[in-house]
Amino acid sequence: MVLPLICAFVYGESENVVPWLVCIALCVLFGFLLSIKTSGDRNMFAKEGFVSVALSWIVISFFGSIPFVLTNAIPGFVDAMFETVSGFTTTGASVISDIEALPKSVLFWRSFTHWIGGMGVLVFLVALLPLSGSGNLHLLRAESTGPSVSKLVPKVKQTAKILYLIYISMTLILIFLLWFGDMNFFEAVTHGFGTAGTGGFGIKNDSLAGYSAYSQVVITVFMILFGIDFSIYHLIILGRFRDVLKSEEWKVYIGVIILSVAMICVNCYNLFDNISDAINHSSFQVASIITTTGFSTLNFDLWPEFSKCILVILMFLGACAGSTGGGIKISRIIILVKSIAKEIKIMAHPKTTLKIKMNGRVVEHETVRSVNVFMVAYLIIFMLSILLISLDGMGFETNFTSVAATINNIGPGLADVGPASNFSCFSPFSTIILIIDMLIGRLEVFPLLLLISPYTWKK
Amino acid sequence: MVLPLICAFVYGESENVVPWLVCIALCVLFGFLLSIKTSGDRNMFAKEGFVSVALSWIVISFFGSIPFVLTNAIPGFVDAMFETVSGFTTTGASVISDIEALPKSVLFWRSFTHWIGGMGVLVFLVALLPLSGSGNLHLLRAESTGPSVSKLVPKVKQTAKILYLIYISMTLILIFLLWFGDMNFFEAVTHGFGTAGTGGFGIKNDSLAGYSAYSQVVITVFMILFGIDFSIYHLIILGRFRDVLKSEEWKVYIGVIILSVAMICVNCYNLFDNISDAINHSSFQVASIITTTGFSTLNFDLWPEFSKCILVILMFLGACAGSTGGGIKISRIIILVKSIAKEIKIMAHPKTTLKIKMNGRVVEHETVRSVNVFMVAYLIIFMLSILLISLDGMGFETNFTSVAATINNIGPGLADVGPASNFSCFSPFSTIILIIDMLIGRLEVFPLLLLISPYTWKK
Repeated sequence: MVLPLICAFVYGESENVVPWLVCIALCVLFGFLLSIKTSGDRNMFAKEGFVSVALSWIVISFFGSIPFVLTNAIPGFVDAMFETVSGFTTTGASVISDIEALPKSVLFWRSFTHWIGGMGVLVFLVALLPLSGSGNLHLLRAESTGPSVSKLVPKVKQTAKILYLIYISMTLILIFLLWFGDMNFFEAVTHGFGTAGTGGFGIKNDSLAGYSAYSQVVITVFMILFGIDFSIYHLIILGRFRDVLKSEEWKVYIGVIILSVAMICVNCYNLFDNISDAINHSSFQVASIITTTGFSTLNFDLWPEFSKCILVILMFLGACAGSTGGGIKISRIIILVKSIAKEIKIMAHPKTTLKIKMNGRVVEHETVRSVNVFMVAYLIIFMLSILLISLDGMGFETNFTSVAATINNIGPGLADVGPASNFSCFSPFSTIILIIDMLIGRLEVFPLLLLISPYTWKK
Repeated sequence: MVLPLICAFVYGESENVVPWLVCIALCVLFGFLLSIKTSGDRNMFAKEGFVSVALSWIVISFFGSIPFVLTNAIPGFVDAMFETVSGFTTTGASVISDIEALPKSVLFWRSFTHWIGGMGVLVFLVALLPLSGSGNLHLLRAESTGPSVSKLVPKVKQTAKILYLIYISMTLILIFLLWFGDMNFFEAVTHGFGTAGTGGFGIKNDSLAGYSAYSQVVITVFMILFGIDFSIYHLIILGRFRDVLKSEEWKVYIGVIILSVAMICVNCYNLFDNISDAINHSSFQVASIITTTGFSTLNFDLWPEFSKCILVILMFLGACAGSTGGGIKISRIIILVKSIAKEIKIMAHPKTTLKIKMNGRVVEHETVRSVNVFMVAYLIIFMLSILLISLDGMGFETNFTSVAATINNIGPGLADVGPASNFSCFSPFSTIILIIDMLIGRLEVFPLLLLISPYTWKK
């Protein structure tokens, strides 16, 4: 919160200096109170890792929303909480109708929450704070995305440092490239944060529609890059190109993007002036949805049904595991599809013994089981959320896509929550449901389930 | 087809006698040709069971649709095939706008396909034809509903006979009760078939809306009864009430029905004149959807969003395994929910070893895996179907609920395919997709996947 405070100074928002100072003071005070009583036992098991991550995310969301209330940007606390959770979980769904009316320090904070939440708040702490080895691993595992965490190096602390170094470097390159184009420094930084975290908060009411094709292409490319497993970049840095080529996930991911762009281009050819326009806009929208960023350069709610349906499917696929993106993740989909193929082979030839392989290695039974359970829990939460928000009486398409857009951390949905609208139409009750969905989506179901499960609290 | 022929005689439809005779002749001819070349090896394995069931259903659907074309009830072959598959799979979705204009022999055939398809065509054959023991089991397994087949008695042939005896007896009681009310004999028989098979084809344009509350209540009760695992009735006949009480599935099923009816009554209280009307109509609709029958006594597309959302969720749950109902089946849902609880317990206490139990017995690992794979394959087919039919340009609610209504073998959906509309709005391409979905739903995914899988055809 020191950064938005500086921002308030730089841009002469004198009325916002005190609110930011109050927020910082509250955080320091609460942090101090929390640190008074510590457990002597610093060992952590999986359970503690999950619960710590779940509780931390609830706490940071609470404190992160205070600035919105104090600066009067969003007076209602539930709405402010929605905006903050949407930021940290890199969803990018907003309840604000006129974004351009917000003060710059608040706009900076909104985008900064994306950047912090993208790679993970606790992963950041793991890189910096002294904790026991097992504790680090469990925190990293609970907060990072995908079915299994890949330790880049034997030490978890070192892994977290490498992840953040790659993340910071790529963000800086992106900001520089955007600044080089038609964005000023503030625009480049905020959009850089929103892209790096695959968040989607913009600073204009029409998202990215008003910027040059150059800026749009740069953001398209970087959205796709931030949706790839960061361990791939580590392999590239180490020069292990053969391992990069062996990895299946990014190839499927790029394949899905190319296929989707091609289908949308054909389906929407009469909506665009020329072929380069068609490719530019459809690849921007596809990259934005599959990486679960949520920026837009046009109102895709006006596209034909087939193209909209492709976007809805991409909402669920999501980006690669180990990236900053949300959704189910490509690697989970690969494991699930392979498990279908395995089952059919076993049915056809019952005596064969088969193992599911990925990237040339056997996927452990526990991982496959966990992916299956993830899917089931995800679907049940999905269904229940739609049921609960349907009490507001909005249409089915709105309900379905608002849950899809929040649980997959995307941002805009279709119909009443399309790119040209926002989430302010929901009742406080539904807003709370969608807040929970965003957290469940970002933390991938289990941390929050463990937090509320009675088994966790049994000795 | 001898029965509708008799029907044509009785009701004096002289113009339809020849078409029915031609259909019968075609079936006899084709059956004769098929029986010329037989394999010496009468042994069957799982693979042959699945493929036989898949092929048989395609063949009977083809021949079952010829009468619609020849009697000119449905001139287009794709539409006729849709109606027939909808009949055999007990879906009950129709492409006919004016049902009351159809001749009685055709109406009888429509309803009779429900009754035949409900318990299973091949299960019927198993009960009658001489086949080796293992072949019988594989056919029964591939055609009956739910995650695992329960042999009522050691001999499969005997099991099939008992199933059909229970089925026939219950159908006769139902027909008698309906005839006793305000239905004539023809109406009682056709609605009896439609209820017993949990099909949903009516013989009136407004489905069951025009009948007395007595008839509606009788059908409500019998829809619920036909949605229960038939092995429960076998246990009751044998007097093994303790085993009945130990069974979990039917209790969850009844619980879900009561809960849904209560929620809809509260949500829709201002739409009904009095409380008994509210309970009657909401329980009819709930029973009709959860058992995947698809009859209706009113246009539930006009209900508030929350109640419609409950119905959409019930569409997916479906009835009990081993019943004539469709959908995912309550027992699969129970296994999946228990697998979530198991995973959370393992995460909280990694050293515990746990097995999923149902009805007091351990569920085999293979069954759990197969249920998971079923869900994944089901979801992928669901998504792809929505994508493909979205090419017709209908709205999202229509596309979503038409796939839901066909793959779960229900009948009506919402919006453009609601109870007051029909499926004639789709292009031939989408109609074919929905035909495939109905077959996939009735045969529970695997038989058709095995049919098209290259592994099946490898030696």
